[in-house]
Amino acid sequence: MQDVYISGVGMSKFGRRKETLVDLMVESARKALEDAGREKVDAIYVGTMNPEEFASESNIASVVADRLGLVPVPATRIETASSSGAAAFDEAIYAAASGYFKSVLAIAGEKMTGVSTGRASKILAEVIAPEERKYGATMPALAAMITRKYMKEYGMKEEDYAEVAVKNHKNAALSPYAHFNKEITVEDVLKSKVIADPLRLYDCSPISDGAASMVVTSEQSEVKLKGLGQGSDHIPLTKRESFTTFKSTKIAAEKAYKMAGIGPKDISFAELHDAFTPFEIIGSEDVGLFEPGMGWIALKEGITSKNGRLPINPSGGLKARGHPVGASGLAQIVEAVWQLRGQAEDRQLDGNLKYALTQSIGGLATNNMVIILEAV
Amino acid sequence: MQDVYISGVGMSKFGRRKETLVDLMVESARKALEDAGREKVDAIYVGTMNPEEFASESNIASVVADRLGLVPVPATRIETASSSGAAAFDEAIYAAASGYFKSVLAIAGEKMTGVSTGRASKILAEVIAPEERKYGATMPALAAMITRKYMKEYGMKEEDYAEVAVKNHKNAALSPYAHFNKEITVEDVLKSKVIADPLRLYDCSPISDGAASMVVTSEQSEVKLKGLGQGSDHIPLTKRESFTTFKSTKIAAEKAYKMAGIGPKDISFAELHDAFTPFEIIGSEDVGLFEPGMGWIALKEGITSKNGRLPINPSGGLKARGHPVGASGLAQIVEAVWQLRGQAEDRQLDGNLKYALTQSIGGLATNNMVIILEAV
Repeated sequence: MQDVYISGVGMSKFGRRKETLVDLMVESARKALEDAGREKVDAIYVGTMNPEEFASESNIASVVADRLGLVPVPATRIETASSSGAAAFDEAIYAAASGYFKSVLAIAGEKMTGVSTGRASKILAEVIAPEERKYGATMPALAAMITRKYMKEYGMKEEDYAEVAVKNHKNAALSPYAHFNKEITVEDVLKSKVIADPLRLYDCSPISDGAASMVVTSEQSEVKLKGLGQGSDHIPLTKRESFTTFKSTKIAAEKAYKMAGIGPKDISFAELHDAFTPFEIIGSEDVGLFEPGMGWIALKEGITSKNGRLPINPSGGLKARGHPVGASGLAQIVEAVWQLRGQAEDRQLDGNLKYALTQSIGGLATNNMVIILEAV
Repeated sequence: MQDVYISGVGMSKFGRRKETLVDLMVESARKALEDAGREKVDAIYVGTMNPEEFASESNIASVVADRLGLVPVPATRIETASSSGAAAFDEAIYAAASGYFKSVLAIAGEKMTGVSTGRASKILAEVIAPEERKYGATMPALAAMITRKYMKEYGMKEEDYAEVAVKNHKNAALSPYAHFNKEITVEDVLKSKVIADPLRLYDCSPISDGAASMVVTSEQSEVKLKGLGQGSDHIPLTKRESFTTFKSTKIAAEKAYKMAGIGPKDISFAELHDAFTPFEIIGSEDVGLFEPGMGWIALKEGITSKNGRLPINPSGGLKARGHPVGASGLAQIVEAVWQLRGQAEDRQLDGNLKYALTQSIGGLATNNMVIILEAV
């Protein structure tokens, strides 16, 4: 595949925003275009999970192209549930690598707070297999089952994975883009209300609004796409081979490493999909950064902290940067670019950052992406 | 761009189907895989406009991959309103041309009859600009305005464009895939009830269920992608430069011809987006097959009939094959492949078919695609 580079990135502040979904997408896209030093692109990809039901927006790709003043540019909407932002990035990469387009703008966003929390939870639960949903299964309920299984298998306790929330809130406190800017303690997590036993409020990413954007081109720039991979899995949890690992992430990671020609040992830092805090731990194992059952120990030892050997979610992650579902996969990549360029301001990681890895989960790990970027 | 070929196609019967959207997609995909002589592909693209609201289906790409038994294949949903099927094809092409994937399965479908006609019309109207929708504008109402303008500018009468419906019903009567298999007369059209003056029931494509699929590969096969183009336009009609031509089609056609290195004179036949019968006429002019204002005259002269010099919509078009919105753009390409291969059975066109052109309209012509295929 032809080399593709990232030449501009932009992000809206995540959180409870008054603006519309299109406003947020346009805000982030204008920043990315400015960062890339260009006014036009050859194509636009818009990643968003469910703007129809969350935000009463249809035909979103055309709407965004029009609002950006980029008509008659080709504009296409991409969706893979909660990994839609990463999927939009992948399509932008293929489109640029095909040679048909030279510069492509990937935009990803979601506006979730326009509906009630109950309604938002119901929309999110639509990704669950109907045969499991009919028993009242929700995303937190299934994530709780997965958490229980991991706890039993590897001896992890509630206070252990609570450290994910503590770490990610600490990182997000340094970010002007994050939904939450307040640090929390393990005690705060353990005192927060139970959402789906054993998961508590602070173990769950918030319902957020936000958007992220990126310009990719075939012209050389500071950050290069090194590898990417995508994997799907059976929708019902009952059909999965394992509860303590997501096969779709493992497949995606294998492909990404193979394309990159590097291994987990080469990764400088990662942005992982911590929609529920234990998912960051599982993700860190699935992408090979730690052995199975060792992710929570690495966390406890501070290895994944901002100043650790292998920082995870310096952005604050989905947990604390916020999780406007369709936006998150691309927001991870934007953070990775900022870090690799040394432009992450107060969040900037130390050391010589060479390779960044991002991992995004679609649905309940039915459509996951892994992306590896290189500072060149 | 690297050459890409179409190695297998399949389609479900269009119409009022009892099956679910996923059933229809799987039915057409299995046929395409069988036609391509393969059981697996490297990636799946699923084009569909609004399965969330039409069919209560979310996370559709993963669901289809799972139902097809193709997990852990990468699977991504593509949407550009009513041209989503053509958009899924385009993404399959870029993905294959990038070199990252060798074989890609494009699937497109919609299940519209699961909701009431009133509800379906409301979902379709969501693509209209809010500032025009608030005055009660519907798709037929805006199409009627466009029709009036064309009639005034070029002297076309109701009985003239009624011939589109007559021709397309005649073609569809020969198709086992079509929603309608009955021939109609100009009198039938003119006697049918007014939907939005001057458009009558038989001037509007029906609300249908159906799916189409296609395998594209970098390996040589009988039909080759020769050119493709996509163009967007302003959402509000009030911002358009013209009512009697769709700029997004013209832009898309220009790009497709440029890539193909051929012109309108080289086209053997076309599948055009006749969601409303006058749109076939406008489309035939926009893609350069006829001069502005001459499309309806060519129709009257029988040039676009099955046995004419330049057949349009041998499949029966959206009007009579049916218009499950997300499916139509890919169904057009499936028909083009069958015709180019000489496998269109009773619908087979005479003569040496070399180049086929398809044109798909997204929304009210805000996101249009033109695709040119070659028999090699």
